[in-house]
Amino acid sequence: MFEKPLGMRDTLPELYEKKHRVRSSMAETMKLWGYQFIETPALEYYETVGAASAIADQQLFKLLDKEGHTLVLRPDMTAPIARVAASKLLDEDLPVRLAYSANVFRAQQREGGRPAEFEQIGVECLNEDTVSCDGEAIALLISSLKKAGLSEFQVSIGHVGFAQELFVQILGTNGRADALRKFLYEKNYVGYREHVNSLQLSSIDKQRLLQLLQLRGGEEVIGQALDIIENDKGKQAIIEMKELWDVIKDYGVEQFVKFDFTIVSHMSYYSGILFEAYAGNVGFPLGNGGRYSLMEKFGKAASATGFAVRIDMLLEALGSSQLENTTHCIFFSQERRKEAFLLASEMHEQGKRVVLQDITGVKNLDAFTKRFTETTYLIGGSANE
Amino acid sequence: MFEKPLGMRDTLPELYEKKHRVRSSMAETMKLWGYQFIETPALEYYETVGAASAIADQQLFKLLDKEGHTLVLRPDMTAPIARVAASKLLDEDLPVRLAYSANVFRAQQREGGRPAEFEQIGVECLNEDTVSCDGEAIALLISSLKKAGLSEFQVSIGHVGFAQELFVQILGTNGRADALRKFLYEKNYVGYREHVNSLQLSSIDKQRLLQLLQLRGGEEVIGQALDIIENDKGKQAIIEMKELWDVIKDYGVEQFVKFDFTIVSHMSYYSGILFEAYAGNVGFPLGNGGRYSLMEKFGKAASATGFAVRIDMLLEALGSSQLENTTHCIFFSQERRKEAFLLASEMHEQGKRVVLQDITGVKNLDAFTKRFTETTYLIGGSANE
Repeated sequence: MFEKPLGMRDTLPELYEKKHRVRSSMAETMKLWGYQFIETPALEYYETVGAASAIADQQLFKLLDKEGHTLVLRPDMTAPIARVAASKLLDEDLPVRLAYSANVFRAQQREGGRPAEFEQIGVECLNEDTVSCDGEAIALLISSLKKAGLSEFQVSIGHVGFAQELFVQILGTNGRADALRKFLYEKNYVGYREHVNSLQLSSIDKQRLLQLLQLRGGEEVIGQALDIIENDKGKQAIIEMKELWDVIKDYGVEQFVKFDFTIVSHMSYYSGILFEAYAGNVGFPLGNGGRYSLMEKFGKAASATGFAVRIDMLLEALGSSQLENTTHCIFFSQERRKEAFLLASEMHEQGKRVVLQDITGVKNLDAFTKRFTETTYLIGGSANE
Repeated sequence: MFEKPLGMRDTLPELYEKKHRVRSSMAETMKLWGYQFIETPALEYYETVGAASAIADQQLFKLLDKEGHTLVLRPDMTAPIARVAASKLLDEDLPVRLAYSANVFRAQQREGGRPAEFEQIGVECLNEDTVSCDGEAIALLISSLKKAGLSEFQVSIGHVGFAQELFVQILGTNGRADALRKFLYEKNYVGYREHVNSLQLSSIDKQRLLQLLQLRGGEEVIGQALDIIENDKGKQAIIEMKELWDVIKDYGVEQFVKFDFTIVSHMSYYSGILFEAYAGNVGFPLGNGGRYSLMEKFGKAASATGFAVRIDMLLEALGSSQLENTTHCIFFSQERRKEAFLLASEMHEQGKRVVLQDITGVKNLDAFTKRFTETTYLIGGSANE
């Protein structure tokens, strides 16, 4: 009877507290690395942020304002942050490190278990185009996931330019590359193989397209990638990846990182490295990021690298560990009310969770008592009288 | 060019951090008092929560879902929490203490400086109808405002039943009371006086209606209120207020509390005490609350007391104190990159905010350096080589 809209969820106390802990750990790490948190409105103009966000139009929640303009509930945070940065934070043409923790909205077509509102925490390092900045994003992703309590995970790194240039080299046009890119985006490698085999190509070109699927692993992948790419832009992508690997090794986090040149993006604004974080027990990426040039849509020519982590996926990866909360309950009657208030106040000062409960306000005392780890009864005539 | 919708705001880093500190202090206090935080979706069905929320219809942001149902962006948190509690948390018929920290949405008709999205933090003590519970809400409001750093403020307490019963006693019908109630709600005391004087009433009744405006102050107000009310329900409201005052004194927070029997509410679901928190330098209440019976709309007959504080108003009351953030910047070149990463890692472990900046990524070093309290340069050949 009292339903919620499709894909909308309530977060009850235990899950809320887990989310809070994970978010706080990650946010604290991001702050220590010098990222400054900002907040943007839930509603933006469709023409401004909705159109820039690269989330499919049918996934946008739209409404009309009083003047008939179309508004959208933000489907991601990258576009709003690009808007804020381009409008207010890039006047001095300096690097800017921003962070956010916010719910984003994606309308679902049917009840399939996917949330229509979920929380992302992430960073954007704007107006900074060095490979050091790319490496920093990956090292910070790793550091913040570890601080959140995750120990088993992997960050796969690729480059938007590699598959792109390989496809152009072999297929000649961008349009013909789209079908292959779509298979990669959907991680449908069987479909990709079948499609490659159906193409009218030389056996060496087919071999190269199939070898792309093997370009996943450690440093050795760099050499293998260089073997199959011929054009300069493609080679440049590989050189960037080699430099990035050196930065990652200097951070000492290479054990968490693998190359994966099959990573592509449906976001048109990505312009360089791409990465995705996975935990073995979760089917979807916990988070992803990359280098992009989105601020041009807001009138500033500036490149940036960022990532977003989905709190719900991260919680799934962390598993169902129980929180150990001890809450004390002091039951009181009117005669000893003041004494109860003083005791609770002292315990609060010590950082203890203490509920004060008028005994006359509880109908089923046994059931209520079970909700607490400890109880104190201050009932009837005062002990001091 | 890159505008935001009417009443929508960006929160830049300094304000964000102030909000975060205030929210954390208040939330920590609420948790220590045994309130459990929950989150509800931003979108709810209009028929369910929109209609129950008692915010004027023209202030609701509405949209249609795929099936043509009207959705609203939540205009407050009290109605969603009543929905959650009635659906999931009151099966055992026990008191439940919930808290929230969430943005709510109220469409503005014109650009008048009022935000269309703002943050509320608050609590609801549900299914508990003792005066102890009312007193707890007021004591917790005071304690959490103090923890947020506010020292000068006042909580005014009234009762929905007193003015109501006084008006019925004198004017006979509820309908005729509406005009007077509206003046009180708008705190238009001049208009109230003029309206009273224009009514065809005995001079003793006029005097009583005018005396209502004087029922603001300390414990002495209780006796004055009893003098002008004749009907039993009105007297009962005064007796409740006297009991509440005793609870507040037992908490030892009476110096922050004043009676104000002119407080009324436009929320139809309020059923008992009402209160509002003020700081001298802010024209609007920082927060307000009271006892209500809203869960009936969700199929449970249960009474509750709660309050909500507006973070923006609280920040205004706290004034413009500067945050003292020290952020260190380590500039590095490729040769000493690893050394820089190690140094930053050590400083992060010590809880210091440290930005790592590739020197080649900054066009204007002087301007960038000014953003940090300290800088270290690890540039060129290593000191150890």
